Amino acid sequence: MKSLWLGRVKDSVADRGRDLLGLRSHNKTAVSIEKLCLALLSEKGEASGTALAREVVLHYSRMSQSEKIAFFELLNTRFGPDEEAIIRAVDRYKESPDPDNYLALRKVSEPARQKLFRRINIAPNGIQAIVAMRADLLGALASYPDLRVVDADLKYLLKAWFNRGFLVLQRIDWGTSAAILEKLINYESVHEIQSWEDLQRRLASDRRCFAFFHPALPDDPLIFVEAALVKGMSDSIEPLLDEKTPVLNPADADSVIFYSINNCLKGLRGISFGNFLIKQVATELAREFPGIKLFSTLSPIPLFKRALNNPEIFTEERLVALLGDDLKPICDAAGDQNVMAAIEKLLDEPLLHEDIIADPLQRLALAYLACAKREDKPYDPVAFFHLSNGARIERINLFANMRGRGMEESAGIMVNYRYIPDDFEANHEAFVHHNRINLSKKLQKNFRALHSLW
Amino acid sequence: MKSLWLGRVKDSVADRGRDLLGLRSHNKTAVSIEKLCLALLSEKGEASGTALAREVVLHYSRMSQSEKIAFFELLNTRFGPDEEAIIRAVDRYKESPDPDNYLALRKVSEPARQKLFRRINIAPNGIQAIVAMRADLLGALASYPDLRVVDADLKYLLKAWFNRGFLVLQRIDWGTSAAILEKLINYESVHEIQSWEDLQRRLASDRRCFAFFHPALPDDPLIFVEAALVKGMSDSIEPLLDEKTPVLNPADADSVIFYSINNCLKGLRGISFGNFLIKQVATELAREFPGIKLFSTLSPIPLFKRALNNPEIFTEERLVALLGDDLKPICDAAGDQNVMAAIEKLLDEPLLHEDIIADPLQRLALAYLACAKREDKPYDPVAFFHLSNGARIERINLFANMRGRGMEESAGIMVNYRYIPDDFEANHEAFVHHNRINLSKKLQKNFRALHSLW
Amino acid sequence: MKSLWLGRVKDSVADRGRDLLGLRSHNKTAVSIEKLCLALLSEKGEASGTALAREVVLHYSRMSQSEKIAFFELLNTRFGPDEEAIIRAVDRYKESPDPDNYLALRKVSEPARQKLFRRINIAPNGIQAIVAMRADLLGALASYPDLRVVDADLKYLLKAWFNRGFLVLQRIDWGTSAAILEKLINYESVHEIQSWEDLQRRLASDRRCFAFFHPALPDDPLIFVEAALVKGMSDSIEPLLDEKTPVLNPADADSVIFYSINNCLKGLRGISFGNFLIKQVATELAREFPGIKLFSTLSPIPLFKRALNNPEIFTEERLVALLGDDLKPICDAAGDQNVMAAIEKLLDEPLLHEDIIADPLQRLALAYLACAKREDKPYDPVAFFHLSNGARIERINLFANMRGRGMEESAGIMVNYRYIPDDFEANHEAFVHHNRINLSKKLQKNFRALHSLW
Amino acid sequence: MKSLWLGRVKDSVADRGRDLLGLRSHNKTAVSIEKLCLALLSEKGEASGTALAREVVLHYSRMSQSEKIAFFELLNTRFGPDEEAIIRAVDRYKESPDPDNYLALRKVSEPARQKLFRRINIAPNGIQAIVAMRADLLGALASYPDLRVVDADLKYLLKAWFNRGFLVLQRIDWGTSAAILEKLINYESVHEIQSWEDLQRRLASDRRCFAFFHPALPDDPLIFVEAALVKGMSDSIEPLLDEKTPVLNPADADSVIFYSINNCLKGLRGISFGNFLIKQVATELAREFPGIKLFSTLSPIPLFKRALNNPEIFTEERLVALLGDDLKPICDAAGDQNVMAAIEKLLDEPLLHEDIIADPLQRLALAYLACAKREDKPYDPVAFFHLSNGARIERINLFANMRGRGMEESAGIMVNYRYIPDDFEANHEAFVHHNRINLSKKLQKNFRALHSLW
Repeated sequence: MKSLWLGRVKDSVADRGRDLLGLRSHNKTAVSIEKLCLALLSEKGEASGTALAREVVLHYSRMSQSEKIAFFELLNTRFGPDEEAIIRAVDRYKESPDPDNYLALRKVSEPARQKLFRRINIAPNGIQAIVAMRADLLGALASYPDLRVVDADLKYLLKAWFNRGFLVLQRIDWGTSAAILEKLINYESVHEIQSWEDLQRRLASDRRCFAFFHPALPDDPLIFVEAALVKGMSDSIEPLLDEKTPVLNPADADSVIFYSINNCLKGLRGISFGNFLIKQVATELAREFPGIKLFSTLSPIPLFKRALNNPEIFTEERLVALLGDDLKPICDAAGDQNVMAAIEKLLDEPLLHEDIIADPLQRLALAYLACAKREDKPYDPVAFFHLSNGARIERINLFANMRGRGMEESAGIMVNYRYIPDDFEANHEAFVHHNRINLSKKLQKNFRALHSLW
Repeated sequence: MKSLWLGRVKDSVADRGRDLLGLRSHNKTAVSIEKLCLALLSEKGEASGTALAREVVLHYSRMSQSEKIAFFELLNTRFGPDEEAIIRAVDRYKESPDPDNYLALRKVSEPARQKLFRRINIAPNGIQAIVAMRADLLGALASYPDLRVVDADLKYLLKAWFNRGFLVLQRIDWGTSAAILEKLINYESVHEIQSWEDLQRRLASDRRCFAFFHPALPDDPLIFVEAALVKGMSDSIEPLLDEKTPVLNPADADSVIFYSINNCLKGLRGISFGNFLIKQVATELAREFPGIKLFSTLSPIPLFKRALNNPEIFTEERLVALLGDDLKPICDAAGDQNVMAAIEKLLDEPLLHEDIIADPLQRLALAYLACAKREDKPYDPVAFFHLSNGARIERINLFANMRGRGMEESAGIMVNYRYIPDDFEANHEAFVHHNRINLSKKLQKNFRALHSLW
Repeated sequence: MKSLWLGRVKDSVADRGRDLLGLRSHNKTAVSIEKLCLALLSEKGEASGTALAREVVLHYSRMSQSEKIAFFELLNTRFGPDEEAIIRAVDRYKESPDPDNYLALRKVSEPARQKLFRRINIAPNGIQAIVAMRADLLGALASYPDLRVVDADLKYLLKAWFNRGFLVLQRIDWGTSAAILEKLINYESVHEIQSWEDLQRRLASDRRCFAFFHPALPDDPLIFVEAALVKGMSDSIEPLLDEKTPVLNPADADSVIFYSINNCLKGLRGISFGNFLIKQVATELAREFPGIKLFSTLSPIPLFKRALNNPEIFTEERLVALLGDDLKPICDAAGDQNVMAAIEKLLDEPLLHEDIIADPLQRLALAYLACAKREDKPYDPVAFFHLSNGARIERINLFANMRGRGMEESAGIMVNYRYIPDDFEANHEAFVHHNRINLSKKLQKNFRALHSLW
Repeated sequence: MKSLWLGRVKDSVADRGRDLLGLRSHNKTAVSIEKLCLALLSEKGEASGTALAREVVLHYSRMSQSEKIAFFELLNTRFGPDEEAIIRAVDRYKESPDPDNYLALRKVSEPARQKLFRRINIAPNGIQAIVAMRADLLGALASYPDLRVVDADLKYLLKAWFNRGFLVLQRIDWGTSAAILEKLINYESVHEIQSWEDLQRRLASDRRCFAFFHPALPDDPLIFVEAALVKGMSDSIEPLLDEKTPVLNPADADSVIFYSINNCLKGLRGISFGNFLIKQVATELAREFPGIKLFSTLSPIPLFKRALNNPEIFTEERLVALLGDDLKPICDAAGDQNVMAAIEKLLDEPLLHEDIIADPLQRLALAYLACAKREDKPYDPVAFFHLSNGARIERINLFANMRGRGMEESAGIMVNYRYIPDDFEANHEAFVHHNRINLSKKLQKNFRALHSLW
């Protein structure tokens, strides 16, 4: 069957429509975005519908930052909800909360911009434009907080459109198009991809990379995860990132290590796929490699150093208790009586002071992961993500990432969050309802000794 | 790039989830659909999310008609809007119609079933299930009118998901899968497809068939149109339906005749694509065959006979005026003084009475198309569809469809609605805003003579 | 990556070339096929190469039967080997059989038509044309035996082109294009496909159909096999052909029955793929359904009746010995003292005489399969095919195909040839080198009793 | 339709076969390649056929250079033609050159290795192995010239398999897989690709890259051509190679410049596709961009400097005549009375001496292209290739490639060979049959002045 992708056809429809509307490109400024949007919402024919949608997209793409803000304000006011109509509907509903009045209330409380966004989607590449629009809007929210109602509408729509039921899991490998691979290079922010050669190593036969795609955005991965097939649970990031690491025969692997997961489209912020992705990929790999016994991440603890320096989290009292007899050797070795300063100093040359600092660091990290909270949930966002997925903290690895950010943020520590399919459900429930932090047996034992010190 | 379609993967995720939930299939009745839906909406983990969604779909698929009604009622009440919460939100909004209160109102006025539908979509084939659900619901609305609020929600969601921006135009031909072609056979209701051989003729090289598909339903055409490449504007359906009609060399054609357009999925009723489809196909064919000069339909006027027999439309006075001097010959030939009865009789053997009946029939049909209205719009639904698309009535063809329904409903008459790209916009506007019926020059002339007689 | 199939591009190249050559289609007769072939072989440019090849194909497609014969004769003589040049090369080779003279001999002994066929392949659909040409040629060989040298060249080339290394195994199901499915309907000659509904049943979820394709002929299956997933080894064809047979859940099947295998392109006669196909499909199905324990055919014994009536095979003496005590009851029941005539009579109503005829029929069939030979190999071609593949005769099923041809040719008997992967090699060797007929244990036992009677 | 690529299936078949044969991989050395090849040629079953073929491929892939030579010698002798049998067949043919004896002669003169190669092709990736084998063999021919008969067989087979009728033209762009793009980087030898960024510029929207693929080698381009859409016929390579060159809107282009064409697989040497490729791509681009008026190459003249220094080509007499009055200024400027030495010196800083050297260089280059011959054909291989394709020499561009090899070999000169579809045929014929060098009008005029000086 020949497939005529809409893009091409829509372009023609749009071309004709533009001609009819006198929207010639040499005449760009003649029509304001407001008029275009009003026309797009009005009773215009389909032909002009596609043409108008394209003009809106084109117009928007040429806007300066300040013009975009003005456009968002327009969406907020001119295309916002009709307050008076809502009041009227509200009154009728209060009088009689019957289905008719309920539907009328719902209808009237949906602002015109919702319909506008839906119509813009008809344009060639309309969905890209809308996602880009939300990325711009999110960037503006800090300075223009009133725009968050506009964002609420955009997010609502995108959530419907990017329903996970529509997403397609695709493997990414060296046979993938350069256009998509280039996006991986651009979007990888956990462990930056240095070059095409670096990327090629990450896609070798002992690696797996999977992404979610939306069928209307076939060249735009929404989120991707990188995994390594290894022997034994990885305790250091270096072998996973080093291009020179010999390629393992996948048949010899017993473990899968997820070492990076990245969202790609800023405009989809708050619409989460990550949890789903890891589990699907684990399912997929379990099928491909029946010999795999362990699925785990190797993850940073990005707020650990910040927490260490936060006296409300690591109070003087807690620090002293947790460090115990190690307190003195640390201060002595560092030549500094301030505990935090001493630790910082030793961490400048961690391997030199391994014997002094290793045990205390393990304890501090475990206490941080298990006890440091924000509204009853883990203070660390990565811990929160994996624990809420139903994973458990399997192991804390010291000196596991000595590269820049790894040291600065996580004190070189990386954590294995282990995914055990049979435990997802129970772990997740215990975490969500009882704030339970799931730990491996060994960490549980360690934790019992620490618990009372926090 | 290897594409792992979600279906397969989701099935595994769902399998595992089902195990965890104790939702074994031998235990089907153990869990009520209400509990499943509540669980699906609750804070369950993702794994069980997919599993639960699948269970809901499975459960639903096994329901009897009465169980389905009970389920819809459940959606209407248990998963409907929270009246009290709305009242509270309404009060706060009236107090202060600020963004926060506005968003709160919108949030609370969205019923739980909306979220439920979105989560059901996660199931393997969830979208099919939801579309099928709406088809069932539509069938029940007549007897259970209170369910229309549930339908409003379903329709709202499906409208978002089936946004035309996501639809893909595909050509259907003999190289298309039998699974899809079988659906054409099943869904074609304008001119039934008698056999695979009939279908094959309709897909020969002088024919074109196009359909819209949604990427998540690759085997389900949403709507399809059948077109014939011919010489001259067709004035009869027979050559288009006759399997024996010789295949024309497409290069020799000067006209495209759209002779059938069918919606496929009952569950998408009210979400229209037809208008868009005809125009895109015309654009596509204009590109493929630069020699094509005319795009037109050959359409029935399905309510003509009913209108003729409706004394509120064709009043005695109008009939007499429109028939004029032809009145007597008709009654004489039929041996019946009742005009309508006489006409009916002559139509039993139309070709025998061609000379008596042809002119009056032309006049009646033109009057019907141009003057018979329902709320200021054409009484005939097919006329309404094409006129609102911006087409014009080009020609009225007598004795154009002598087959059963063609005679019974349309008195054998078929109409050419002509699509002239340059006129779409103006025609559409004139029709929408001024109720103008666009006619070809010749029909305009004829119409001037009739106008005052209505 | 956009793929521009050669067909389309070549058409353009060919169009231009045709213009240059003055080969306009209104001028078809102006150029003889001989001139076209000479030009195609000559030092013409590439553009005209493609154009010329297309003209040859076009010319050929319009030829009458007698013109085709004339063309083949032309290939035999005008484009045949250069006898004098061969004699010269032969002389030089005899003088000195060195590499140069050897290569020269080979070069000169290749006739011009070989190169011609290779160049015709450049035409759009050239390969189809060449395969069709050979089909025509094969049809003419009986009357024109001298053309077999031309056929030898064609076959040689096609054997190279259709090397199994290039063939692609594809599953055929209801999702396959109607164009391909139609070919199945046309080519199935073992058990005719009665209708599209019949075909659909044969492609249901408890059936599998696979075909080999050549990449240059994506719409032309070369050979296909139909298999049924069943419980227990099938002993009758009826349930496999009956559209009403309930669809089995594939997970419940323990056996795969190959019940039909058909070659499609007559032009590829003598280039066998069947053996390879059954084994690959068995491998494929063993992977898909680990629970399958048995792979077997259900096959006719198409020359059985002919052999029975052939007194050189079933001699009077053998018949009497094989029938033994059953001889009299048979003749009595039939009221005919001629053994063969008696058997024929009883077979008219086989089930009525089951108790009399069953045992003798088993013996006759087993003797036929195991003892009736042609040049030391099984007389029955189907037996020869499966035995040479390494299968064994597993069971002889009486009254297994009561339909027309089944009774006429095979006396209603069908045979299970069982494929046991671990035995292929040894069976094949024993069959090829020692003419051993491999039998199941039970049949071996039966055979020991019969052996001396032949 | 699900497509089960043979590779996967064949691997399984091969696996089973290997088991049967006891060809376990830990036992590699147990079986010699000779035995494997003999087995592959013998009456083994199909299952072992695939397994054996794979073993041969595996064996070969592990061979050292000297083992490969030994293997080729084996092919030459053990699997070469049967001399005695040929002599016998030869004798019979001389006695009676009838079809039977002719076919017998042909059959016997085909060596066993031909069949062996055909059977190796059954292995997974067999075709790759055979192409690689020929690449190795070609590398060895210089030292082992007797192996050329083996090469003749390999080439013969590959020529049949890679018949242009089977090749598929595909566009290569940034949406192509990295695996294929990497091959472009590796194989581009005319103008090396420096980096992925360089490649990306060469695949931008004002560039086109096309390659021929064989369906059995979907990831291996056989030959590719790079073209630029530009305004006006390019006279310098720099803007085409510079990553910084602004991307032209393709709609603004009037010319296509082919600036690089590369064969990829060494093992296909002598099987030419280039001529066909340029014409097909020109046809394709003419369709895509109706505004393109000119198709031309920008090519080096790689043997120009070598010819200049070859006193048999540029004899003293010719040089003096061609340089005329420019002789003295050149020698003066260079301070060297040896003409060639003087020219070389000035070419060290060509732009500095442009006014002195430009005219003479034009004359020398034109004389070289039009008059320097080898066996009546152009001495320059690039000129030979394009002229034999039917192109004409349009313009000679000085200082067109100042990069290393461009200066060293071509003295910085590049030539536009122009492809005018309507002239292909006549040009090609004139070139092939009459050795005519086709020149643009302007160059023809210049040439008339030079002609008598050579």
